[in-house]
Amino acid sequence: MSRPENASGVRLRANSFDGVSVARPRFTDFTGALAPTPAPSSSIAASALFSSAGGPPGGNEAEYNVIDEKSPYARLRAPINVLAATNPIRAITDALPTPTNEMYAHKTISLAVGDPTAAGLTPPEKLTRALRDTERHGYPPSVGHTDCRAAVAAHINANTEDVMLTAGCSQALEHAIRSLASQGSSVLIPSPGFPLYETLCKLHGVQAKRYPLHALQNFMPDLNAWRRLVDDTTVAVVVCNPGNPTGHVSTRTELTQMANAAAELGLVVLADEVYSSLAFARPFVPMASVSERAPVLSLGAISKNLYAPGWRLGWIAVHDRAGILEMSGVRRALLNLCQVSLGPCSLVQGAVARYFTDAQVAGSEAQRCAESHIADACSTLAKRAAAASRHATEAGTAGGGAPLFEPPAPPAGAMYLWLRLAPGTCRSLKIGKDDDAVDDEVAFVSEVLRECAVVMLPGSCFSAPGHVRISTVASEDALSEAFHRIELWCASLRGDAPMDAA
Amino acid sequence: MSRPENASGVRLRANSFDGVSVARPRFTDFTGALAPTPAPSSSIAASALFSSAGGPPGGNEAEYNVIDEKSPYARLRAPINVLAATNPIRAITDALPTPTNEMYAHKTISLAVGDPTAAGLTPPEKLTRALRDTERHGYPPSVGHTDCRAAVAAHINANTEDVMLTAGCSQALEHAIRSLASQGSSVLIPSPGFPLYETLCKLHGVQAKRYPLHALQNFMPDLNAWRRLVDDTTVAVVVCNPGNPTGHVSTRTELTQMANAAAELGLVVLADEVYSSLAFARPFVPMASVSERAPVLSLGAISKNLYAPGWRLGWIAVHDRAGILEMSGVRRALLNLCQVSLGPCSLVQGAVARYFTDAQVAGSEAQRCAESHIADACSTLAKRAAAASRHATEAGTAGGGAPLFEPPAPPAGAMYLWLRLAPGTCRSLKIGKDDDAVDDEVAFVSEVLRECAVVMLPGSCFSAPGHVRISTVASEDALSEAFHRIELWCASLRGDAPMDAA
Repeated sequence: MSRPENASGVRLRANSFDGVSVARPRFTDFTGALAPTPAPSSSIAASALFSSAGGPPGGNEAEYNVIDEKSPYARLRAPINVLAATNPIRAITDALPTPTNEMYAHKTISLAVGDPTAAGLTPPEKLTRALRDTERHGYPPSVGHTDCRAAVAAHINANTEDVMLTAGCSQALEHAIRSLASQGSSVLIPSPGFPLYETLCKLHGVQAKRYPLHALQNFMPDLNAWRRLVDDTTVAVVVCNPGNPTGHVSTRTELTQMANAAAELGLVVLADEVYSSLAFARPFVPMASVSERAPVLSLGAISKNLYAPGWRLGWIAVHDRAGILEMSGVRRALLNLCQVSLGPCSLVQGAVARYFTDAQVAGSEAQRCAESHIADACSTLAKRAAAASRHATEAGTAGGGAPLFEPPAPPAGAMYLWLRLAPGTCRSLKIGKDDDAVDDEVAFVSEVLRECAVVMLPGSCFSAPGHVRISTVASEDALSEAFHRIELWCASLRGDAPMDAA
Repeated sequence: MSRPENASGVRLRANSFDGVSVARPRFTDFTGALAPTPAPSSSIAASALFSSAGGPPGGNEAEYNVIDEKSPYARLRAPINVLAATNPIRAITDALPTPTNEMYAHKTISLAVGDPTAAGLTPPEKLTRALRDTERHGYPPSVGHTDCRAAVAAHINANTEDVMLTAGCSQALEHAIRSLASQGSSVLIPSPGFPLYETLCKLHGVQAKRYPLHALQNFMPDLNAWRRLVDDTTVAVVVCNPGNPTGHVSTRTELTQMANAAAELGLVVLADEVYSSLAFARPFVPMASVSERAPVLSLGAISKNLYAPGWRLGWIAVHDRAGILEMSGVRRALLNLCQVSLGPCSLVQGAVARYFTDAQVAGSEAQRCAESHIADACSTLAKRAAAASRHATEAGTAGGGAPLFEPPAPPAGAMYLWLRLAPGTCRSLKIGKDDDAVDDEVAFVSEVLRECAVVMLPGSCFSAPGHVRISTVASEDALSEAFHRIELWCASLRGDAPMDAA
């Protein structure tokens, strides 16, 4: 049995944490990535690749054998909520199979994850230098070093005592949901939306109620859906701005409408603002700045804005003008959670404190550098988003064919292009089942991976079948090459010409 | 109201994350640290300092006002389990009050936390240099970079695919408990024991059942208590070796007896081995090396062994010879949890991979340095533990008085001295209530903090009233000074001489 190293550098082995079970095929791995299949390159087998993404919510505990009832361990079962809480993006990217098209062997292009560093975009030099200079080796205070909290607070216009530091924005999200929602509570989440919202809800026994974002309404949340979905169990609404996966940047008017609706409905706003500095077509407006009555937990990180996702530093800022989060115990709950998790790496806190503090000195060179990092990032991402939009709009049309995708809404921020397969694309490419009402994007991206060695994420990850998300942090060359391969593949399916690598 | 900066560098403010509520005294802070008290230096007020530690288990949600029932937010309540999950060590050390004895103003000596860096012990230079040289800025694979997992695996004699990396040993503990125990399950934990075990159980709705470690039985777990406590809900037993707070290092024979009992009772062993390299009086034996039948989750970190608690890198190693953790879904649950938490800082992973990998080259200079770091650490900690034992044995006797503590068991590892107040100590010092059956160590450590500016942790933190834990990472000078102050204080209470600072 060979042991391929996948794109994430994770070695795939039987019974390993990588989640791939080869030696014990009776425990079907839910991604199915390396499970033996009768016809590995058929579209049906390929679509099994991403089968978890579109599956029904709930536990997959049935996949695990019950231990021999005579064993003293017969009562041992992993908790259902933990087994149900799969993170589809990670499940896919941690265990990518090898493309079958040998022309592209070892040349996989990933458009899957919003990791700028994978495309050669690296953190500002002043930040890495600050890390080299810091000597903080001891335990940080549970909510973070005061200087780092103060620097982050100044950066996002909050009070120091309202900021607590977390291990990335993922932990900020988890703490926020845990502090607000008991088992049996519910939270409104956007659809399409970042899948971790729903994963965390499942993990903590919280019901995730999806509210729609319609492309035709400019991805403005459907506030009537909020009103319809809210009941006595509903405690919060998640709003992501700039939007993942939509790339939409909300206007002040839109945000004010959301804040007012939240206040009227008694919802705390979880404002996922992890892409706050990466709004390139319209200014970013913080939710907390427009919310007069609704309490806001504003979540952020250096991961995206400073090209440093691996540093794992994020934050929660509490905006609680009316004292609602204080009175309800949410603030204390957040503190308790921090006293268990103990904060992000002290060294990173030292570096971030230094970087932001220096950058806050008006007229300093550090300020100039920090501003130029953000300006460069916005300009780079805007260019790449435009290139991706152009390629996607033309995709499939080279030999006179029909476009693969509907014309996308041009992203105004973040690092993704959100695409909808044009109706009939799968049928015309003979992918998926013939009677699918919605185009089977899972089959589509599986085929693109196998035949073109290009990784895109299926919309089902974001609760939106028929769609595809591509990361636009890839270089323009990589984007060109990816769409060129797709063009060749479409041509070969139509029988236009023999398939040939560029 | 002044805003003192406490020992952890956390500024104490009203309604802040620091957990201290001054402006709204109706929400009594559970540590009471800055709450106005009628007689701030009386022993009763002082003992309120640590009141959370010895309190009954359960939520303190009653402390939070219900929001006006006409408010749309009336239904908002922080989850009871999160409010109940206080971490007493952190709650105390994050919000220490200022000592009242002005002789020691700004000269507080903390013997509270096992943080070597606070006593000037810093990580090996090769580790900090490796951090400066690494350039890993991107997201790590969910279970950690393969080279770091491999290096850790070689270090602890496990298989690479069985190791997953976590943000410190605290997260390793949380993931381990979550992967095994559903709500309503129970876990056996040692008493005295590290309080995070119980905090995490409360957080996840798991019943923590305490089993005793008796000083007279050399802190060997009472296996008959295991048999008595286990029922159909019990899935695991936590064993801490080298022991916190006891300083005991278990022998191979003792560990084998524990492993056999766990196997017989159908318990997974959570082996907290975070002090594995710091066994100075007897060799450390890994639980996994003696457990033939019981599955073991071995938990570790660089925090203590490499003097790098702020780096936040720990691990879980799965030892599952019979496939029980695989079959029960625990392995998959661990993977799911990692795919949500996304692992420790990438840069730290790069540095640790380099440090351990280099140190594993036989005969290399790196190996020599790594071995000498551990040898130095053991010799330093052994010396400090011996000094602390000597001081504690003599404490209170200088003017012909009775000893404050019972003669302690000399620590064989870890970084703590576990002391029991000699019967009658509080009465003779006129501390606490006169009718206390057990000496009120909470009152004792509160007085020591106020009068001597020395921080010790009350045994109630470790579910053992009448005891005191002191960290032995402090320098011998600091230990001398701390016990000198205590001696002066005892003398002044007895009226021997006017109190005078050294």
